[in-house]
Amino acid sequence: MTSIGHVAPLSMRFDQPLPLRSGASLRDYTLVYETYGTLDADRGNAVLVCHALNASHHVAGTYEGQPKSEGWWDNLVGPGKPLDTDKFFVIGVNNLGSCFGSTGPMHVNPSTGQPYGADFPVVTVEDWVLAQSRLLDALGIEQLAAVIGGSLGGMQALSWTLQFPGRVRHCVAVATAPNLSAQNIAFNEVARRAIVTDPDFHGGHYQAHDAIPKRGLRVARMIGHITYLSDDVMEEKFGRELRAAELGYSTQDIEFQIESYLRYQADKFSEYFDANTYLLITRALDYFDPAGQHGGDLARAMSVATAKFLLVSFSTDWRFSPARSREIVKALLDNRRDVSYAEIDAPHGHDAFLLDDPRYHGVVRAYFDRIAAENEGART
Amino acid sequence: MTSIGHVAPLSMRFDQPLPLRSGASLRDYTLVYETYGTLDADRGNAVLVCHALNASHHVAGTYEGQPKSEGWWDNLVGPGKPLDTDKFFVIGVNNLGSCFGSTGPMHVNPSTGQPYGADFPVVTVEDWVLAQSRLLDALGIEQLAAVIGGSLGGMQALSWTLQFPGRVRHCVAVATAPNLSAQNIAFNEVARRAIVTDPDFHGGHYQAHDAIPKRGLRVARMIGHITYLSDDVMEEKFGRELRAAELGYSTQDIEFQIESYLRYQADKFSEYFDANTYLLITRALDYFDPAGQHGGDLARAMSVATAKFLLVSFSTDWRFSPARSREIVKALLDNRRDVSYAEIDAPHGHDAFLLDDPRYHGVVRAYFDRIAAENEGART
Repeated sequence: MTSIGHVAPLSMRFDQPLPLRSGASLRDYTLVYETYGTLDADRGNAVLVCHALNASHHVAGTYEGQPKSEGWWDNLVGPGKPLDTDKFFVIGVNNLGSCFGSTGPMHVNPSTGQPYGADFPVVTVEDWVLAQSRLLDALGIEQLAAVIGGSLGGMQALSWTLQFPGRVRHCVAVATAPNLSAQNIAFNEVARRAIVTDPDFHGGHYQAHDAIPKRGLRVARMIGHITYLSDDVMEEKFGRELRAAELGYSTQDIEFQIESYLRYQADKFSEYFDANTYLLITRALDYFDPAGQHGGDLARAMSVATAKFLLVSFSTDWRFSPARSREIVKALLDNRRDVSYAEIDAPHGHDAFLLDDPRYHGVVRAYFDRIAAENEGART
Repeated sequence: MTSIGHVAPLSMRFDQPLPLRSGASLRDYTLVYETYGTLDADRGNAVLVCHALNASHHVAGTYEGQPKSEGWWDNLVGPGKPLDTDKFFVIGVNNLGSCFGSTGPMHVNPSTGQPYGADFPVVTVEDWVLAQSRLLDALGIEQLAAVIGGSLGGMQALSWTLQFPGRVRHCVAVATAPNLSAQNIAFNEVARRAIVTDPDFHGGHYQAHDAIPKRGLRVARMIGHITYLSDDVMEEKFGRELRAAELGYSTQDIEFQIESYLRYQADKFSEYFDANTYLLITRALDYFDPAGQHGGDLARAMSVATAKFLLVSFSTDWRFSPARSREIVKALLDNRRDVSYAEIDAPHGHDAFLLDDPRYHGVVRAYFDRIAAENEGART
């Protein structure tokens, strides 16, 4: 399967303030996005891809001169791929608060002339969706053929069907949950504490101190990585394999390959990810809870949704387990919505949503084929 | 059920060097221990209790004038309790490298006159068992009626049956594993990195700098706590309960009760636990792997054991799952050993081994009743 080839990021500036759930508002902001494929004349084939924690608008393809710069969902999105850019006009958009281009903590706060840092307002899934809807307005897209996302991206996809029911025909939510469990929040909180208590954090204004709280970011990333992988796949990949032939009997040196892997991932992450963004995004995860506004009744919360749904979960995902997806399926069925649900028996844990398991991709392909057929039907 | 009442720690100094698995040796050392009950004239009713990560020799009873100082297994050990101090002479011993009395990193290194700090040698489960055996020598106890421990304590109990098969009649190993999985090691490694990269760690010589790496200890404790509790019990205890009536929309303030709980536990722990001890004990966990010395064949490793065994696991323990206990049971059955095994359906996760679930305590009580009956039988 070929990639879509070279792509380039676009950006759009918005001068109308964005009211946020917190009560604050963003005076003005820029969204960075990419598009792949061609928008039909009737503008009916647009698909929005929402990203998770450390991804971005760069969903598919590569940047010219950077052959290793594949988008994070390049295996799923492209010509002839499950989300086929020969049929759909695909939009990837970077969320507010990110460190990959859209307005975020590293940008200048127009009120102070200094980087926002910790003063960047807390953003929620709902705020992101609102901002995304304005991008669609600007692109002249009234209704999405589908919105799709995995993990935190799946939460945005769900929220689209609640905030703008008339603007989404299909919602594809992969490896997601209707809210975080106490354990999920606990892992986020440890990661945040590691960052916030790093002396280089400087209350979130580390840019002004020419510092980066890398120690905290490293620990945060290590915790994240453990929860993204299943126990089994970690065992299979690393087990108790040693790095050297003999034990070194040291508490600080690397003994086991799993330690080496985690430290490598942590170092890499701390080089490119922004600490304030990490705090913001984990908080957006914590806060998402559509049922919370309906006394915990998810079915009541989902009753406003009119889209058709595909939910996908992975058997070994212990971060957002299949049981969490089934809660969403049940809430939709209670509302007699059109729901497809696939529970994929995959060994990789939460990370499976980024991998190209053939059963998983087969389900997504079939679902988008159905959407394409509906689009054809509507036209003839 | 009454407690055993007031107890007092004892200590014993050893001048014979202790050879360690690492090749290093401890020139001299002190073990702090407690005993409860009365040693029979034939010295056949001794039971050694091995402790896990943040526990100590103080297994049962309270210290005079400190009514809240119950030992960590006070619900299991005492007069009329499952491990009945009216029948057994129970010994709790603090392991080398600990921060609760036995020789450890906070003590003075006789070679330098300064605190050991990071220079305290790496100790293993096998080293602890060897040191414990010397304490028994000094107490004139040739053979234990039983050795018992939970988690890391269970590993020591297992190791007793391999290192000193002739000195243990029964082994009671609760919520334990034959070695750590890659995921277990990964969690330990994140905790260690949090400590080691805390600027107050000073390469492990923080005492000399009059500092304590509390930030790292806090993060380590939070990670630990998450893995001790089951997802379900965390959900039941805390769920998504907020601390205040309204969301505060903050990345750094506490919003959810689970955050408040974790921070409280973390603060408490960082006040009393030593960072170097944390590194040493998690490494002892990492290294324990009796099968590793036999090409991964646990049955071969366990073939030297002659004790009778009780294994107990808890259904929701995802740190040391029932499957890990069953590996031990199978290895013992492959050797035609006398094994009892109870898988307790308890909601609390790994922490269940410290709680007084009646089915769990019933099993332990029945097993020690059997040992007491054997002892009676041997006498008549």
